[in-house]
Amino acid sequence: MTTQLAPDGRLRHLLTLDGLPREQLVALLDRAQAFADGEAGRSLAGTAVCTLFFEPSTRTRLSFQRAMQRLGADVLNFDASTSSTSKGETALDTLKNIEAMGVRGFVVRHSVDGGVAELAAAAAPGTALVNAGDGRSAHPTQGLLDMLTLRQARGTDFSALTVLVVGDIRHSRVARSDLQALRTLGVGTIRACGPAALLPDDATLAGCEVSQDFDAALEGVDAVMMLRLQRERMAEGLVSSLDDYHRDYGLTVGRLRRAAPDAVVMHPGPMNRGVEIDSDVADGPRSLVLRQVANGVAVRMAVLEALLA
Amino acid sequence: MTTQLAPDGRLRHLLTLDGLPREQLVALLDRAQAFADGEAGRSLAGTAVCTLFFEPSTRTRLSFQRAMQRLGADVLNFDASTSSTSKGETALDTLKNIEAMGVRGFVVRHSVDGGVAELAAAAAPGTALVNAGDGRSAHPTQGLLDMLTLRQARGTDFSALTVLVVGDIRHSRVARSDLQALRTLGVGTIRACGPAALLPDDATLAGCEVSQDFDAALEGVDAVMMLRLQRERMAEGLVSSLDDYHRDYGLTVGRLRRAAPDAVVMHPGPMNRGVEIDSDVADGPRSLVLRQVANGVAVRMAVLEALLA
Amino acid sequence: MTTQLAPDGRLRHLLTLDGLPREQLVALLDRAQAFADGEAGRSLAGTAVCTLFFEPSTRTRLSFQRAMQRLGADVLNFDASTSSTSKGETALDTLKNIEAMGVRGFVVRHSVDGGVAELAAAAAPGTALVNAGDGRSAHPTQGLLDMLTLRQARGTDFSALTVLVVGDIRHSRVARSDLQALRTLGVGTIRACGPAALLPDDATLAGCEVSQDFDAALEGVDAVMMLRLQRERMAEGLVSSLDDYHRDYGLTVGRLRRAAPDAVVMHPGPMNRGVEIDSDVADGPRSLVLRQVANGVAVRMAVLEALLA
Repeated sequence: MTTQLAPDGRLRHLLTLDGLPREQLVALLDRAQAFADGEAGRSLAGTAVCTLFFEPSTRTRLSFQRAMQRLGADVLNFDASTSSTSKGETALDTLKNIEAMGVRGFVVRHSVDGGVAELAAAAAPGTALVNAGDGRSAHPTQGLLDMLTLRQARGTDFSALTVLVVGDIRHSRVARSDLQALRTLGVGTIRACGPAALLPDDATLAGCEVSQDFDAALEGVDAVMMLRLQRERMAEGLVSSLDDYHRDYGLTVGRLRRAAPDAVVMHPGPMNRGVEIDSDVADGPRSLVLRQVANGVAVRMAVLEALLA
Repeated sequence: MTTQLAPDGRLRHLLTLDGLPREQLVALLDRAQAFADGEAGRSLAGTAVCTLFFEPSTRTRLSFQRAMQRLGADVLNFDASTSSTSKGETALDTLKNIEAMGVRGFVVRHSVDGGVAELAAAAAPGTALVNAGDGRSAHPTQGLLDMLTLRQARGTDFSALTVLVVGDIRHSRVARSDLQALRTLGVGTIRACGPAALLPDDATLAGCEVSQDFDAALEGVDAVMMLRLQRERMAEGLVSSLDDYHRDYGLTVGRLRRAAPDAVVMHPGPMNRGVEIDSDVADGPRSLVLRQVANGVAVRMAVLEALLA
Repeated sequence: MTTQLAPDGRLRHLLTLDGLPREQLVALLDRAQAFADGEAGRSLAGTAVCTLFFEPSTRTRLSFQRAMQRLGADVLNFDASTSSTSKGETALDTLKNIEAMGVRGFVVRHSVDGGVAELAAAAAPGTALVNAGDGRSAHPTQGLLDMLTLRQARGTDFSALTVLVVGDIRHSRVARSDLQALRTLGVGTIRACGPAALLPDDATLAGCEVSQDFDAALEGVDAVMMLRLQRERMAEGLVSSLDDYHRDYGLTVGRLRRAAPDAVVMHPGPMNRGVEIDSDVADGPRSLVLRQVANGVAVRMAVLEALLA
């Protein structure tokens, strides 16, 4: 398996938060905090970085682009839908070609689990890849920005916290990266909640208190991390209806009262308002949703700088 | 209703030319003239500006991008057709998200009347929006560039001029912005001409001499502002055929002889050659069509600078 | 016919390698070599260059974009598929409009033979066009990058070389540009090989040894330039099957033994692995495929600088 760490322990690619040493994770958060506080950074001036998305995502792409711009990088974009991949070229040939153009960094989204790691394994020595989401496996920069947001809100003593992850954990790369990071940072109590059909395997839930009862799971938590419900879960028969889902797993103002008085609410976006989260909560005083987005740029700056500067 | 002026009278957004004070309009034209004359400007270095188009438009987007580049801004592009809006995210959530990424300026095109103003009403205090066209309501930078072009050709004494706007005024945001600006600048005589089915309500035509007879309306005018005929007007039964439209409302070299000897011809593009305008006119010595395009970049630089610098 | 040379002999546009004087071709290769060796160049700072693709091509577009970035140019992109051309605007109106925005350089891909030259004929005096591929006619920067790659591998004495071009020469703009450049540089022996249905007219093959027998044609060659087989040739009945094509014209490790011991292999990409070329060859020690891609950026820098700096 591709490792994202070089033999000397330095971060070469960012593929997953699974196994990323705590001190490296914290160092990335610290550097991201500096960027969030306004540090200018132009450390990638003259360096070309390419977004390489085999699955569409406007928001993640824009966030990475803004990070590249603030670092002074030259931004290139590869849109797989209008590309030579439709002429039968493989993703690997695409990567090797753009690499040959002198591009040193790639931000890659892939629909297949491990698709980004497979490309990283074939990259040239000087090339660095950032996983911007692969299949259901990992979305490490989302995990990092969630941790930065949590740390800003609740301080650095993670051992005292109870954090709840709610929703379609089974199909969520965001949930996997979040759970890995929460464990690495030593969060005191991690809870996971969702309907049985949307809960993942046991390994994913290692160390979690697992429940299908949202009301019970919410009791006294310090942070609620909501997940997006993909509408295709209905077609697959995993969820009976949006109304039922909202009744059982939708975060409402009333329900949020079960959490700790100063509990915060997070969501990776885009939100299904009225399904997994009500607008009163999403736009309310406990919501950190836009702070998460802001931190996304800072975290991506820290990652790109660590890999490429 | 959202106002585009801050309490101190400063321009905060540019949403419409309706009600924009004459001195502010003239100040924008003066600054645009400096940019048209080659002034460098780099006043937006490090500032991120995002095009946010919920309706496609390559030319307007390119013109704004070129303006941003000349000002040194970091350019981001959001293409609604491949975006999270297809996942059900609202335009407002999209705006608030990109705003959270540290983007201070937005150039927004929207298919709905008032769609841009609605977004502006929800923007954060430091954010500025430029309306790049909303529904049939307004296209203020087109209005400004038309005024700059007219002023370059005929001088600053607008009171002496007779200007004719021709075509599908009813469905045209360009016509609305042009008519508002012509009134604000005190043009002596404003004429409006088109088939009855394509004439708008009386408020839009306030102060205009209205006619359905193109030949009569052309007599002695100093400037003819043609409008694009959308082909869907045929399907809607508002226009019988392109041939009929050309016969009655197409600008030909012969017809143009009715105008003043030094009359100028304008068109916002893209032109339907042989429908509303003949190539002999569009490419002829009286045509300012490409000058309009050139002025578009200068006007957009002036607007972005006024809002963001 | 549009000439790409100004009356004083200077290169004004790059439309074709047909008739480009040898000394100009060599000067472009020399300058490209300097860029390939790492020369920084920022000679187009503040200059706007627009990619104008009426036919999709991600890789060529990215290569030009990277060249523009290294030269410090402001990059604009026009995507014909979402543009006003769908509103009936002509390619010429599109060019003239973007030109009016202050854009001085255009990189144009067109589906029609001579489509780029036609636009160049109508361009303003200060505007320069680069043909990024038109119909089956020409792809001059590909021809240049192939020559640079060949020169790096085999030195500057082209008269001693035997070079073989293989495949669908009839429909290939790459082959036409390559053959023209090989002749201009005085390559000793030029061979052309492919099935009868994919061989072009005699003028294209002037000076070539023509064969339908790939094995025989490979004997002792110093360089093999493979061409991509478009899959639509099957539907057109020009090729019976991919398997048959591979049997007769696919480059395998075994077949390559017929060439000179140090023969090099080139392919413009994207490759149909297992059809015209086996992966063992494409990724093998004789392959210059990625070197070609790297040289593409350097060659395009040299061309853009020569036209615009």
